[in-house]
Amino acid sequence: MTHAHYGHLDGPVVMIGFGSIGRGTLPLILRHFDVDPAQITVIAPNGDGDHLLKEYGVKRVNCVLTEQNHREVLGPLLTTENGTAFCVNLSVDTSSVAIMRLAREVGALYVDTVIEPWAGLYDNPDLPMAQRTNYALRETLLAERRARPGGRTAVSACGANPGMVSWFVKQALVDVADAVGLEYTTPVDRSDWARLMRDAGVRGIHIAERDTQRSQHPRQIGTFVNTWSVEGFIAEGLQPAELGWGTHERWVPPTARRQEDPLAPALFLEQPGADTRVRTWCPSFGPQYGLCVTHNESISITDYFTVRDGETVQYRPTCHYAYHPCDDAMASWHELLGSAGTLPTEHAILDVDEITGGIDELGVLLYGHDRNAYWYGSRLSNDETRELAPHQNATGLQVTSAVLAAMVWARENPDAGIVEADEIDYRRCLDVQTPYLGPVEGHFTDWTPLMGRSRLFTEDIDASDPWQFRNVLVH
Amino acid sequence: MTHAHYGHLDGPVVMIGFGSIGRGTLPLILRHFDVDPAQITVIAPNGDGDHLLKEYGVKRVNCVLTEQNHREVLGPLLTTENGTAFCVNLSVDTSSVAIMRLAREVGALYVDTVIEPWAGLYDNPDLPMAQRTNYALRETLLAERRARPGGRTAVSACGANPGMVSWFVKQALVDVADAVGLEYTTPVDRSDWARLMRDAGVRGIHIAERDTQRSQHPRQIGTFVNTWSVEGFIAEGLQPAELGWGTHERWVPPTARRQEDPLAPALFLEQPGADTRVRTWCPSFGPQYGLCVTHNESISITDYFTVRDGETVQYRPTCHYAYHPCDDAMASWHELLGSAGTLPTEHAILDVDEITGGIDELGVLLYGHDRNAYWYGSRLSNDETRELAPHQNATGLQVTSAVLAAMVWARENPDAGIVEADEIDYRRCLDVQTPYLGPVEGHFTDWTPLMGRSRLFTEDIDASDPWQFRNVLVH
Ligand SMILES: NC(=O)c1ccc[n+]([C@@H]2O[C@H](COP(=O)([O-])OP(=O)(O)OC[C@H]3O[C@@H](n4cnc5c(N)ncnc54)[C@H](O)[C@@H]3O)[C@@H](O)[C@H]2O)c1
Ligand SMILES: NC(=O)c1ccc[n+]([C@@H]2O[C@H](COP(=O)([O-])OP(=O)(O)OC[C@H]3O[C@@H](n4cnc5c(N)ncnc54)[C@H](O)[C@@H]3O)[C@@H](O)[C@H]2O)c1
Repeated sequence: MTHAHYGHLDGPVVMIGFGSIGRGTLPLILRHFDVDPAQITVIAPNGDGDHLLKEYGVKRVNCVLTEQNHREVLGPLLTTENGTAFCVNLSVDTSSVAIMRLAREVGALYVDTVIEPWAGLYDNPDLPMAQRTNYALRETLLAERRARPGGRTAVSACGANPGMVSWFVKQALVDVADAVGLEYTTPVDRSDWARLMRDAGVRGIHIAERDTQRSQHPRQIGTFVNTWSVEGFIAEGLQPAELGWGTHERWVPPTARRQEDPLAPALFLEQPGADTRVRTWCPSFGPQYGLCVTHNESISITDYFTVRDGETVQYRPTCHYAYHPCDDAMASWHELLGSAGTLPTEHAILDVDEITGGIDELGVLLYGHDRNAYWYGSRLSNDETRELAPHQNATGLQVTSAVLAAMVWARENPDAGIVEADEIDYRRCLDVQTPYLGPVEGHFTDWTPLMGRSRLFTEDIDASDPWQFRNVLVH
Repeated sequence: MTHAHYGHLDGPVVMIGFGSIGRGTLPLILRHFDVDPAQITVIAPNGDGDHLLKEYGVKRVNCVLTEQNHREVLGPLLTTENGTAFCVNLSVDTSSVAIMRLAREVGALYVDTVIEPWAGLYDNPDLPMAQRTNYALRETLLAERRARPGGRTAVSACGANPGMVSWFVKQALVDVADAVGLEYTTPVDRSDWARLMRDAGVRGIHIAERDTQRSQHPRQIGTFVNTWSVEGFIAEGLQPAELGWGTHERWVPPTARRQEDPLAPALFLEQPGADTRVRTWCPSFGPQYGLCVTHNESISITDYFTVRDGETVQYRPTCHYAYHPCDDAMASWHELLGSAGTLPTEHAILDVDEITGGIDELGVLLYGHDRNAYWYGSRLSNDETRELAPHQNATGLQVTSAVLAAMVWARENPDAGIVEADEIDYRRCLDVQTPYLGPVEGHFTDWTPLMGRSRLFTEDIDASDPWQFRNVLVH
């Protein structure tokens, strides 16, 4: 297999974090760019993966980045006379906006996979709940962009989801528009895309994921197991459930809370996302319960596809995550939620070599149009992942290949300012990424969240409109 | 290890069902009674376990018992000129009351582990929900007893739970009464026991269980996995959640429904038990979420410990199941509940030899008294089970040893009529059973369902009284 080359990285590359995603991204960078391992520095505060860094000849700085030290540590590493530096932030507990600001100041390109705050935000009971949301985190990014428009490119929140799924949404929308027989011209800008979403009749979008990866080692009681960052998943799972709120919704959950800004495209529920189930559908497994964990893309996608008339919102799709993590993670959540506030001390991320089978099926479900619903996404098995790239499971590769795509796009568009995945060339990005995604397929389905309801028990449904959130939410 | 002998079974023994519990019970019968394998007949409609029956020299009748054929099939097998026949019903989908009636008519002793109806009750959407409850099933038993008082002994619903846990409740109550310094005389009859429960200050009882058994083979997606009958667990999990309703409760869940009879000691929730979580506590693992699956003992225990003044109820404890099944079963439920009404076609009961570790910790939590809460129960590991008895895992042995105890008691008290586990000699029964239960321990705890609450999210709690069901139920 020959690998595409995406050009020369002519400056230092600083990767922050070397967890499951960092370890998977490094070999892709070395494979697809002209870059000398000696150019690369990894910053991560523990010794995990040291053998890999040795193997690749990449140096490490052992350091916990903080609000206090990040300029001192990162500044010199990202400042260069020759070429353009690149900062790839794949850590937890570091402020995306602060590090992005520094990178752009010194002229470095920047990519991350999530808008992360400094440690201590997610689980600070003294913070108003509205500030523990992704809406609030994204607002910090948008404020930074307003304060410092243009300039060096920083691609925000560009992993699999948030990230890749925004590109899937566009491809899926084009497929749906064709399938329902809409006549349209290829969208050029954001308002074109939003109108196309409206005109295609899409009411909303699930980020519909099913992870069936399973280990040969049964989970030990007390250990939180996942296929990617346990810290990251616990943090976001304990944030309030949150979703982009569509204009077609006519029922509001009793736990729903609005943001202060009446124009906010999102609302959150006063309950942890990991304890908020929604009905969704994936092609390999059919109907399933997913977790409505808050994610950046739930808000950025809803916002991107809003049709406005001045300040007035004319159309907006609902958008939220519907995540069925691997069985071991589900069991871990059940344990954590029941443990009266104690967090697990043992964390385990399933390694590609201990996983005996399973896939990560991750796509977008565009629903409510004349063809009912359409899932478009990646169905990547762990076995295939092993053939495609080293040091990662299927979940990891869906993320790292999106990071690669974001890096390629940033290198090719170095002065685009701060951008979200929704705003960059989805075709170019998917071209880069597709070799790593296994089968990428679209499936129409007849399933609606009213299917199989109210048989043994009366349920609170809206029988007149299957695609109301009232029918989607398990309540 | 020498095994106690409990005398001669001098008539035919008919065991109905040869699933996980039947297979574990057979070797205990052969071990502890004077009985010739040739006396024993197993009735079960499929070939499972045929090799075991051959090994033990026990014959099998291959037959699905139904309302139509059960008298014809069972009548001759249970009718004998010599000695007393014994009917041990360990099947699903057969009517306990019908078979018990037949057994008593022909003078046979009878034991079962659950009040089971003929097939088709649990998942019949045309039946009023109140009739799909264990309250309604138990009423059929009580009606049979009123119609035919006295006579041959039939021990109803005597496995681990329902069954053994009723004996634990009495032992735990004595321990609590001692610990809180109550002066009392040893209870003799039911009203003594009920007054002791009241006077000891007990508000309610959880059947608090945590099963951590895990397999070396990861669960396959689409397979419902459990450590005992999958059919049985799916059936009861899809029944409405149900509980014995104590006199101290001052909040009623919005989904709660009363039975028609205003004197009914139980209420049910209009939601499946498998989707109803309650906060509980087990000694090895601390606070946890259990499932409030309906069980016979929730009602029989509440009823047994009711203090009445004529028709008026003066005191009654709350009682319900709080079951954390094994991780694989939790994942199976998540899948089933999310599958829009489709039931899994593949069932798997974890076999003792594929289980790599874990325990079944099953006990009773008596709460609300001056020492707060007290758990008393069995902590049986799969490893220890392997040493103790063949062909069963830890969950199985807790059940089969209770069946053995019920058989011993029935043989020693052959004319006691229809009885529930609450009504028979708990000391004798625990003497028989204890060698098979691993450590049987009592633990006081400071935990209450208010612990660790309302940190990140406001919750609907009753801060003035930790032991209200409002605080126990996850809602
Ligand atoms: N968008 C997506 O699709 C997606 C998917 C998976 C992960 N992620 C995000 O990617 C990030 C990394 O995920 P992962 O699975 O590799 O996580 P991980 O938990 O495996 O690793 C986190 C890494 O961050 C490092 N780190 C922690 N605190 C730090 C600090 N203060 N300064 C510097 N480094 C620090 C850790 O040492 C570790 O190397 C997380 O933020 C996660 O939420 C995004
Ligand atoms: N009280 C307790 O603690 C407790 C614990 C576990 C199981 N149980 C009960 O014990 C029973 C057996 O449990 P298991 O784990 O062995 O179940 P299982 O599913 O492993 O086996 C059920 C058996 O019943 C047989 N059967 C099914 N329909 C029948 C019919 N119409 N006529 C005759 N036989 C029939 C099956 O062939 C099988 O042999 C179930 O009712 C279960 O609910 C009670």
